[in-house]
Amino acid sequence: MIHILYAGPQADWDMYKKCMECALDVHTLNVHISPDIPPDQVAYIIYSPDGPVQDFSIFPNLNVVFNLWAGVERVVNNPTLNVPLTRMVDPGLTEGMVEWCVGHVLRHHLGMDAHIVNPSHEWAPKAPPLARWRKVTVLGLGELGGAVARALAALNFQVSGWSARAKDIPGVTCYAGGDLASVLEDSEIVVLLLPDTPDTVNVLDAETLAYLAPGAAVINPGRGPLIDDDALLAALESGQVGHATLDVFRAEPLPRTHPFWQRPNVTVTPHIASTSRPETTSAVIAENLRRAEAGEPLLYLVDRARGY
Amino acid sequence: MIHILYAGPQADWDMYKKCMECALDVHTLNVHISPDIPPDQVAYIIYSPDGPVQDFSIFPNLNVVFNLWAGVERVVNNPTLNVPLTRMVDPGLTEGMVEWCVGHVLRHHLGMDAHIVNPSHEWAPKAPPLARWRKVTVLGLGELGGAVARALAALNFQVSGWSARAKDIPGVTCYAGGDLASVLEDSEIVVLLLPDTPDTVNVLDAETLAYLAPGAAVINPGRGPLIDDDALLAALESGQVGHATLDVFRAEPLPRTHPFWQRPNVTVTPHIASTSRPETTSAVIAENLRRAEAGEPLLYLVDRARGY
Repeated sequence: MIHILYAGPQADWDMYKKCMECALDVHTLNVHISPDIPPDQVAYIIYSPDGPVQDFSIFPNLNVVFNLWAGVERVVNNPTLNVPLTRMVDPGLTEGMVEWCVGHVLRHHLGMDAHIVNPSHEWAPKAPPLARWRKVTVLGLGELGGAVARALAALNFQVSGWSARAKDIPGVTCYAGGDLASVLEDSEIVVLLLPDTPDTVNVLDAETLAYLAPGAAVINPGRGPLIDDDALLAALESGQVGHATLDVFRAEPLPRTHPFWQRPNVTVTPHIASTSRPETTSAVIAENLRRAEAGEPLLYLVDRARGY
Repeated sequence: MIHILYAGPQADWDMYKKCMECALDVHTLNVHISPDIPPDQVAYIIYSPDGPVQDFSIFPNLNVVFNLWAGVERVVNNPTLNVPLTRMVDPGLTEGMVEWCVGHVLRHHLGMDAHIVNPSHEWAPKAPPLARWRKVTVLGLGELGGAVARALAALNFQVSGWSARAKDIPGVTCYAGGDLASVLEDSEIVVLLLPDTPDTVNVLDAETLAYLAPGAAVINPGRGPLIDDDALLAALESGQVGHATLDVFRAEPLPRTHPFWQRPNVTVTPHIASTSRPETTSAVIAENLRRAEAGEPLLYLVDRARGY
């Protein structure tokens, strides 16, 4: 019997229990998974850095720690950890991000809100332009941004993308480095999927927002600090930005007094665009557990010297 | 100088003027297009059956009538018409339909409405399932339905489709003929793109709505009579259907007293999913004008004996 300690979010335990048992069945391992296992029996830990375990020294028979997050910065330097650590690379993360982004781009493209909220029951048959005439910009063309840009191009949008390093994505006009004037100019919908680094803070500010087509939509499923909130609010007030759909914020949950909640032309979604789902992460952990038991190399093993 | 009479909708004239001039420029024809041309000068007519022209006998020098609609049933038997008639096959129609359908499927899939309308500013980070776990059914796999099914499959939805004749669409489970129980069973989102025929009237009625997963979304960009309105209203009331997004109706504009306007779980869009746009239809007409002037065979020529 292999004992696996679940040290992830309490709220997700029921789902993880089902999904891990389902995923592990595939490999016919004889496992016991629980949030409550005597420390000396624990062979593996399913781990989130904000969970109940901070001191790994109490687990004398620990083999591997499976981090549930892509980021390991809050565990990689833990001095009590001296077994292999894996980070999460969740195939569902990209799929979910593509679905959220394409959905909200199409929502703005189609002008859906005017039909979803139509208290005067107005029948005004004005068709939107076709996607092939709509300029959409994706800032950030990494794993997530690249997939989003490809999906939008497949729907015929005129997609431009920008990234620090040059990329080549069929159907997407790719810009690398340099200023944002060319890529943002006349863009009607912009999607932010840049990482949060010193270079990307406030990438959308008063100057860059002014490049967009008047009334453009800003969609941010990336990171809160990518946007200068005051500049965005001013642009929403002036009409330079017609609508913002924001999934990430400098403080989360978004404080109830934040002006984003008050503006009719802002949609707040509660950091759901990029979410790991137990159904997909369980399969990754199950595969790594199988590998560990079989003595095979682990997937997504963290190099602790490099820190990731 | 070639004189082209614009006999389409008055509201679209400005757009057609620009778009036709733009499209015709390509072929460097010397044309004059106007809604007001002396009848004996008219060489071509851009035509809609509900427009100002019903009597073609007043145009002695007419060469071709370019119908703006796909349907020609209101002009094909006009006894005063004795020149070739073309129907419209608009490449933009399919693109627009795919965009509208994929947008509304993603809207329901993602549960967007709860964020678009969120007066209590609730922050409830519950991510939707991935598309790969979402069963979507497309009824009708013709030009439009097939394209919609393919686009949804490309986004990883579990797509089933149904059509009178057997189809083979990669990534789509295709059913042909027979009853709808198998294809609708447990479907969470259903899109109606069947033609309006005696066989398809009320294809969604009390019996077939009951096959759907409880709380399913019904999306109708096809034809109004495909749905038994009273059965749908009952299912919306009971919760068997969670939401309906309807673009077409038995009477249009949808009468202001119709119960669909009153229900919070119905979204009415004003017959915009399948709209011809001057930008795309102009290019088709321009190409046919070029062909007519060059003595080449016309595209989409109506066989008046067959009636289409």
